[in-house]
Amino acid sequence: MFRYSEERFYEPLLKTMKNVLAEMESKQRNTMIKNITNVRGIKCWGAHIGVKSMRRDLALIYSEVPASAAAVFTQNQVVAEPIKVSRKHIADGKAQAIVVNAGNANACTGEQGLAGAEAMAETYASELGIDKDLVLVASTGIIGEPFPTDDIVEGIKENVDKLTNKSNAGAFVANAILTTDTFAKEGFIEFDVNGYEVNLGGIAKGSGMIHPNMGTMLAFLVTDVAIEPKLLKRLVKKAVDRSFNMITVDGDTSTNDMVVVLANGMAGNEVLTKEKDPGCKVFYENLENMMIHLAKLIVSDGEGSSKFVQYQVTHAPDELTARKLVRTISDSSLVKTAMFGRDPNWGRIICAAGNAGVPFDYENVDLYLGDEETQIQVLEKGVPQDYDRHYMKKLLRESHIYVKLNLNNGRATATGWGSDLTTDYVLFNSVYTT
Amino acid sequence: MFRYSEERFYEPLLKTMKNVLAEMESKQRNTMIKNITNVRGIKCWGAHIGVKSMRRDLALIYSEVPASAAAVFTQNQVVAEPIKVSRKHIADGKAQAIVVNAGNANACTGEQGLAGAEAMAETYASELGIDKDLVLVASTGIIGEPFPTDDIVEGIKENVDKLTNKSNAGAFVANAILTTDTFAKEGFIEFDVNGYEVNLGGIAKGSGMIHPNMGTMLAFLVTDVAIEPKLLKRLVKKAVDRSFNMITVDGDTSTNDMVVVLANGMAGNEVLTKEKDPGCKVFYENLENMMIHLAKLIVSDGEGSSKFVQYQVTHAPDELTARKLVRTISDSSLVKTAMFGRDPNWGRIICAAGNAGVPFDYENVDLYLGDEETQIQVLEKGVPQDYDRHYMKKLLRESHIYVKLNLNNGRATATGWGSDLTTDYVLFNSVYTT
Repeated sequence: MFRYSEERFYEPLLKTMKNVLAEMESKQRNTMIKNITNVRGIKCWGAHIGVKSMRRDLALIYSEVPASAAAVFTQNQVVAEPIKVSRKHIADGKAQAIVVNAGNANACTGEQGLAGAEAMAETYASELGIDKDLVLVASTGIIGEPFPTDDIVEGIKENVDKLTNKSNAGAFVANAILTTDTFAKEGFIEFDVNGYEVNLGGIAKGSGMIHPNMGTMLAFLVTDVAIEPKLLKRLVKKAVDRSFNMITVDGDTSTNDMVVVLANGMAGNEVLTKEKDPGCKVFYENLENMMIHLAKLIVSDGEGSSKFVQYQVTHAPDELTARKLVRTISDSSLVKTAMFGRDPNWGRIICAAGNAGVPFDYENVDLYLGDEETQIQVLEKGVPQDYDRHYMKKLLRESHIYVKLNLNNGRATATGWGSDLTTDYVLFNSVYTT
Repeated sequence: MFRYSEERFYEPLLKTMKNVLAEMESKQRNTMIKNITNVRGIKCWGAHIGVKSMRRDLALIYSEVPASAAAVFTQNQVVAEPIKVSRKHIADGKAQAIVVNAGNANACTGEQGLAGAEAMAETYASELGIDKDLVLVASTGIIGEPFPTDDIVEGIKENVDKLTNKSNAGAFVANAILTTDTFAKEGFIEFDVNGYEVNLGGIAKGSGMIHPNMGTMLAFLVTDVAIEPKLLKRLVKKAVDRSFNMITVDGDTSTNDMVVVLANGMAGNEVLTKEKDPGCKVFYENLENMMIHLAKLIVSDGEGSSKFVQYQVTHAPDELTARKLVRTISDSSLVKTAMFGRDPNWGRIICAAGNAGVPFDYENVDLYLGDEETQIQVLEKGVPQDYDRHYMKKLLRESHIYVKLNLNNGRATATGWGSDLTTDYVLFNSVYTT
C-alpha cells in the first residue's frame, strides 16, 4: 500500500476543492437572473422608439469583438429585406452586432425597404465605429407597410450609448423583439469546454396564432466560445433542424424567420475546429439544448393555445423519417383539436402519420398518450388497447401532454413540440374587453 | 509528520469532490432558465381568462404543503378588497396558495368586491382541497370597476388542473400579474442554509408612469427554507424596508400593494427560529438581495422612464436618516428631470436633501455623479469642484446613473433606486401609432 505525506497529497486536492467551491459560490451569487448580458463581451439594449405604439421595438446587441457568426434564414420564397442584407453580411462567417426592429416586418417593401434595412446596418455600424458588414439586421411586425427608416435610424442613434451588460438590458432586448408574443423567451447556460467556462445565452420570439401573417420566428444566440465559423455553421444548421424546425404553431414559415448565433471567442478556449473535439461535443449539446429550450417556449406561447404537446417517434429506420412523422402529426389540425378537446383520439394521430409521405406500417406501431409521468398505451402493434378512459381524460386535462409513437422498425428517434387548437379563442376575445 | 493510508485519506475527500461536482453538474443542467417552479413543492400557472382583452390575467401559485407566510401590505388608507381578505388569512402566519387577477384592482368596489375576493379564495381552496384560510388573494388593474367575480371563479376552476412545476408555467405566472409593465420581473437563487440547499424565487409587477392610479406593486416570493412564521415576518419587514420601500417610480403607494413570502420548509433544514443563526443570516441576505433585484427591475420598467438611477447616502448618523434622504432625493421631480436632461444639476439634489425633514449640513457633504464605474466629484465639503463637463455629459448619457452623497457624519448607509422623468412620453405616444 502506498503512503503519502500529508502535504504532498492533501494540498493539490484541497486547492481543487477550494477552486470548485469558489466557482460554485460565484455562480450562486450571479444566479439571480442570467441572460445574454452574462456572456463575456456582450452588451445590449431594448428601447421603445415609436414604431409600435406602446411597447419596446428596437433591439440592439453588440459584441466587444468580432464574432464567428452563423445563421439559418427562412425557407419562404418571399424574403424580407433585412434577410437579404443579413445574408450578405454573414456570408464571410463574421459579425459583431445585431439590430432588430419590431412593429414593421420590412417585407414586400421593395427598394424603399431594402434601403431602410441597409440604413439600419449603416447607422448602427457607424455609431459603433465598426464595419457595416459586421452588422446583422432583422425585422418583425406588419408586412407590406412602408418601412419607417427615419424613426429607426434616429432610434438607433439615440440608444447606442445605452448598450450595457446590466441584467435589465437583457430583459429589455428580449422584450424588444416581440410582437404578439405574450412573454419574453430567454435562456442562459454555462458549461465547460476543454477546461474553459463558456457562456451561452439566447432570446427568441415566436408567432401567435392570432396573426399567422405576422408570425415571425426570430432567435438570437450569443456565446463566448471560440469556434471556427464553418464549424459553427454546420452545428447551427444541425441544431436548428432538431429544435426550431421541430415545432409547429401555425405551420407557416414567415418571410422574416431567422436564427443567428454569434460566438465571440472571449471564453479563451482554443478555437474549436473539429466536430469530434470533446469540447465541441459539449458545446453542440448545449447549443441544441438552448435552441430546444427556446423553441419549446415559442410553442408554449400564443393565446390561441391552451396546451403544450410533445410528440416523439421512436424506433424509426432513420432520423429524417422520424422527424417527418413528428412534424406531420403535430401539424395536423385534427390532432390539435383532439388535444384541445382532451380526446384520446388515436385514430387522428395514425391518420396523420399515414399522410406523412414516408413508409408507415400501422400494424407494427405502439402508441402512448398521457402526461409527462404517465403515458397510457392505446395501441400495441396496431391493436387498440383497453384503458381507463376516465384516468386518460384526467391526464389530458393537464397543460403538458405527451404522445409517443413507437414504429418498432429501427433505432432512430425524433422529438417535436406543438400546441393545441382552440377554436373559440377569437369568439372569446371578441366578447370580452378590458 | 502524520501519514495516512491511501484509502483512509483519499476516499472521503474523493466522495466529497464527487458530490460537489455532481451538484455543480446538476445545477448546470438546470440553469437554462430558473424561476419559482424550481422551488421544491411549488407549482403555478398563468392563464388568460378574459378580464383583460388579450394578455394573461389569472395567476395561480400553489405549495404542495402549507407554508410559513409573511406579507407587507399597502400603507394607503384606502385598501383594496383582496388586501382585506389576505390580511385576515395570513394572520396565523400560514398560507399555501396565492391567486392573483390582473385587469381589475377590486378596489373601491364595496360589498360586491369583498364578496368577489372571498369567492376567489373559496374557489381556489375548494378546487385544491385545502382550507380557505390558506389562500391569499391579490388583484391589480383598474380601480372602481365592478369586480368580474363570475369570470374569475370560472377561470380558477378551469385552470387549477394546469398547475405544474414546468419552467414555462413560471413565465406564464410572472406575466399574468402584469398590467402596464413592459416586461416580466423574475428572480431565482439557490444557496446553502446550514448545509441544506435552499431555493428562493420571486415574481413582481411594478407601476408604469402612464397610469399612476393603476400603479400597483405586487411581489410574490417563494422559498423552500424551513423558518418559523414570526421570524419570517420580521425578516420580510426588514427586507422590504431596504428594497421595495427604497424605490420610487411615481411616488404613490397604491391601494393594492402587497409583498408576500411563502416558505414551505421542503428544503429539509432544521426550522430557523433565531435571527442570529448563521443559516438565517444567509437566508436573510438572499431574501434582501432578491427583493432588491425585483425592486430594481420595477424601477427599470415604465415606458415613461429612460434611465435607471441609483442613489446612495453614506456616512449618515443612522440608517433612517440615510433612507429618508435617499427617498426624498429620488422622489424629487426636479432631480428626475435633471437626470432625463443629462444635467449634472447638483443644486437640485442638495435642495431636495434640504427638504427631507432630517438634519442636513450642506457644508459638510461630498457629492458624486456618474455612471457605475466612474463617479465624478462635484461637491467637496459643500464646495463646487471643477470637472470635465463634456466627460460628465457623456457619463450621464448612459442608461444607468449613480449618485453618491457622503454626509461625513456617521457610519450608516442607505441605497435607493429611481427613474428619470421624461415629459415628452405622452406626446410621443399620441403622435405615433402602430
